[in-house]
Amino acid sequence: MYRSTVPALTLASFLALPALAEEVSTFTLDNGMEVVVIEDHRAPVAVNMVWYRIGAADEPPGRSGIAHFLEHLMFKGTGQLAPGEFSATVELNGGMDNAFTGQDYTAYYQRVAADRLDRMMEMEADRMTGLILTDEVVLPERDVILEERNQRVENDPGALFSEQRAAAQYLNHPYRIPIIGWRHEMAALTRQDALDFYGEYYAPNNAVLVVAGDVDPDTVLEMAETHFGPIAANPDLRARIRPSEPPQIAERRVMFEDPRIAQPHVMRSYLAPERNPGAQGEAAALVFLSELLGGSSASSLMGRELEFNEKTALYTSAYYDGVALDPTTFSLIVVPVPGRSLAEAEADLDRMIARFLEQGVDADLFERLKSQIRAQEIYRKDNLQGLAQIYGEALASGLGVADVQAWPDILQSVTPEDVMAAAGRLFDRRHAVTGYYDRPAEAAPETIR
Amino acid sequence: MYRSTVPALTLASFLALPALAEEVSTFTLDNGMEVVVIEDHRAPVAVNMVWYRIGAADEPPGRSGIAHFLEHLMFKGTGQLAPGEFSATVELNGGMDNAFTGQDYTAYYQRVAADRLDRMMEMEADRMTGLILTDEVVLPERDVILEERNQRVENDPGALFSEQRAAAQYLNHPYRIPIIGWRHEMAALTRQDALDFYGEYYAPNNAVLVVAGDVDPDTVLEMAETHFGPIAANPDLRARIRPSEPPQIAERRVMFEDPRIAQPHVMRSYLAPERNPGAQGEAAALVFLSELLGGSSASSLMGRELEFNEKTALYTSAYYDGVALDPTTFSLIVVPVPGRSLAEAEADLDRMIARFLEQGVDADLFERLKSQIRAQEIYRKDNLQGLAQIYGEALASGLGVADVQAWPDILQSVTPEDVMAAAGRLFDRRHAVTGYYDRPAEAAPETIR
Repeated sequence: MYRSTVPALTLASFLALPALAEEVSTFTLDNGMEVVVIEDHRAPVAVNMVWYRIGAADEPPGRSGIAHFLEHLMFKGTGQLAPGEFSATVELNGGMDNAFTGQDYTAYYQRVAADRLDRMMEMEADRMTGLILTDEVVLPERDVILEERNQRVENDPGALFSEQRAAAQYLNHPYRIPIIGWRHEMAALTRQDALDFYGEYYAPNNAVLVVAGDVDPDTVLEMAETHFGPIAANPDLRARIRPSEPPQIAERRVMFEDPRIAQPHVMRSYLAPERNPGAQGEAAALVFLSELLGGSSASSLMGRELEFNEKTALYTSAYYDGVALDPTTFSLIVVPVPGRSLAEAEADLDRMIARFLEQGVDADLFERLKSQIRAQEIYRKDNLQGLAQIYGEALASGLGVADVQAWPDILQSVTPEDVMAAAGRLFDRRHAVTGYYDRPAEAAPETIR
Repeated sequence: MYRSTVPALTLASFLALPALAEEVSTFTLDNGMEVVVIEDHRAPVAVNMVWYRIGAADEPPGRSGIAHFLEHLMFKGTGQLAPGEFSATVELNGGMDNAFTGQDYTAYYQRVAADRLDRMMEMEADRMTGLILTDEVVLPERDVILEERNQRVENDPGALFSEQRAAAQYLNHPYRIPIIGWRHEMAALTRQDALDFYGEYYAPNNAVLVVAGDVDPDTVLEMAETHFGPIAANPDLRARIRPSEPPQIAERRVMFEDPRIAQPHVMRSYLAPERNPGAQGEAAALVFLSELLGGSSASSLMGRELEFNEKTALYTSAYYDGVALDPTTFSLIVVPVPGRSLAEAEADLDRMIARFLEQGVDADLFERLKSQIRAQEIYRKDNLQGLAQIYGEALASGLGVADVQAWPDILQSVTPEDVMAAAGRLFDRRHAVTGYYDRPAEAAPETIR
C-alpha cells in the first residue's frame, strides 16, 4: 500500500468566487487498486465510484458494445446478491446508483448517506469478480441494450449522423466505433463474450476507487482494504494499447440525409490532441479556442458575426473536451437560417476560421474569457458527484491526480499566442471531417433510390 | 483423403474461339489440406501454388502488414534450407518463384519443368511449419517492407488516395486497412508477431495446393501425401469471421490533394456484393454493368458519351471484381479534360449513371458484350499460371471448384433485366465514397496550412 496526500489546491485567489479547496488523498492497495478520497464535509453524504480502465475502445474486433453490455450485466447478481438486489439495496439505504460506459472507461457509482459507504464498497468489491451470468439473465438484457440503441440512436438522426462522422474521422483507431456498439454486433453478443471481457479486465489493478464526501481518508482506506484488498490482481492484464492513426492526409466529408431532420446543419470536426500527463498546455489552449470561436453567442466570433451581425445562422457552437486516452476531436457547428444552404453555411464557417487566424485574439475578450473559464472550473466542482467524476474520468483516461489539480492553473496561464499557435496546428483540413446533416430533397437528382 | 473428379467444362460450343477444357481433379488430404490438379499437357511445365486462407483482413488489430511481412519471411529458411536457399534452389532448377498477399489470402508459387514438381512440393511442405525466424533475419526484412511501402505507396499519390478511400468505404470491416499495412504499425512489427501469425494460420487445414500443368493427378496426389500428409492439422484453427459492416447510411467524400498529381480525376466507389458459393448471379450482372458503363471506350456509355461525343473526359472507366470473401466495391472513374473541374466531372459521372438507369441496356451491344466476356474468360485461362491463379484465388476466397466452373455459364446467362436490377440495388449514394484526386490550388482559401 502506497499513500500520498496531495496538498489542497488553493483557489482562494480567484476573485469574487467562492473558494473551493478540495482535500484529496490517494492510496494504492497492494493489489494495485488505486484509491482517491476527496473530502467534502458540507453534507453527511458520500459518493462511491469504481472506475475500470476499460471502455468501448478496448473491445475485441467484432464485439462492439460488449463493454456497455457488461456494464448492464454487472447488476445481474453474484453469489451474495440476486439479480437486481444491488440497486434495490442502494435504494433501501436511501441512496441512488447507476453506471456508465465511455470509450476509455466503465464506471459504477452510488450516492448514499456517508454512514452507508461501507456497505456500498462491500457490494462493489463483491461484483468486481463475483458476477454470475446465466443465459437467463444475459439474453433478456441483450434485448434491453438493443432497445436502448433503438431509442438513443436509431430514433435519433443526430446520433446516427454522429456515428457516421466518427467512422470517417478515424481511419484506424477504435474511437471510430460507437460506444453502444453496431447493432448487428450487439445482437450477436453472448454470455461468453461478457465473461471473457469481465475476466480479463475487471480486476483491482485495472480499477480506481473514488470516494467523495463527508468521509475520513484513513477510514475509507481501511474499508477499501477490507473489501477490495483480498481480491487478487490479474497478473495477465495487458497494456492498454489501441491501434493508432496513420497520417490523415485527405479531408473527408459525410453527407447524411434523413426525412426526420428538423434543423439542417453543417458540422466540422478536426482531429485534436488530448490532455496528457504533464502535457496539458495544448489542450488548455484549445479550450480557449472553442470559446473564442463558438462559446456563448454574445462574445464568440461565430455567434457575434453569424448569429447577430450577418444573421446567416440560427445557432453556432464549438466543442472540445480534452479528457481522453487517445487523440480526440475539436468540432464546430453552424445551423444556417432557413433558405441558406449547407454549402453557404460551410463557407461561413470557413470564413470565420480564416478571419480568426487573420485577426487573432482580442485582448479584452481574452481576459473576460479567463474569468469565465475559471468560474466554470469552480462550478464544475461544486457538487460531490462532479468532483468524483472529474477525478475518476481523468484517472481512467491516462491522467494523474496532479494533472487534475494543475489543470485550472494551466488554463489560467494560456496566452493569446498559445491559442493562435494551437489553432494553426489544429485547422488542417486533411485531418477534418465535414458533415452535412440535411433533409432529403424531393427527387434529388443525386439520389438514385 | 477425399477425392472427386469434376467433369471437364465444355467450352467447345464457344463460337470461333479455341476450346479450352481444363481437366480438374480435387482431393482432400486427411489433415484437411485441399489439393486441386489442373491438367494441361501442352508443354512439359508445371505451376505449384500453395494458397493459405489468411490475408491482410485477418490480421490482429494494430498489426497491419503482418500477413505480407510473413510472406517475405517465408523465404528466410528452415531447418533444411538456409535463408534465400528456397528461391536459389528454384532458380538452379531452371524455374522461377514468387509470392503475394491479398486481403483474403497469401500465396506462394513456383513455375518449373514438370519433373521438378516433387522437389518444389517438398520445399513448400518444409516451410509450412518449419520456418526458423531470428531477429537477424526479421529486422532487416522489416526495413525491406518499409522500403516497399515507400516505393509503392508513399511515392505514389494514387496509392495514397486509394488507401484513404478504402478507409472511408468501410466503417467496420478490415478491408479498410491497406494490405501492406499502415507505416507506423509495420515499423513496430516483431519476430513474435510473425511467429504468432504463422503458428496460428499456417497449417494444412488452412491451405490449398493448386498444381497446374503437364502432370498426372494421381501422381500429384501421391507427392502431396508424401510431403504435406505428415503435417498435423491445427485443431485450434479459428473460423474466418471478420467484423462486418453496419448499414452504410451516409455518403462519404474524400478530398485528396497532392502536388505530385499529374491527372486530377474523380472516383466513385459503391459497396458491392461479392461472388458467393452457389450465388454468383448478382456478381455476374455487375461484371456486365462495369463493361456497359466503363468498359472499352468505343462501346461503353461513359467512353462513348464523355470521351467521344461531349469530349469532356480524357478517360473513363469502371471496375468490379467479385472474387472476395466479403463485400467488395464497384468503382467508376472520370478524368476530365483540362479546364474542367472535378465537380463538373462528378456531375458528368452522375449524369451517365442516371442516363443508364433511364435508358437501359442496348440489346445489340449486350450481345456483343457477351461474346467479349466469353472470350475474356477463355483468354484468362490460356496459360498455366492464370489457371492456377483462378482456382487458388477462388478457393481461398470462399468459393469452390464448382463455382469457378459454373462462372462462365453464369456470365452467359445474365440478362439485361438482371443488369438493370443489380444497378438499381448498387447505385445507392449512402453506400458510396466519392474521391477527388487533385493538385492543390495555389493559396486555396479552404486550405489553412
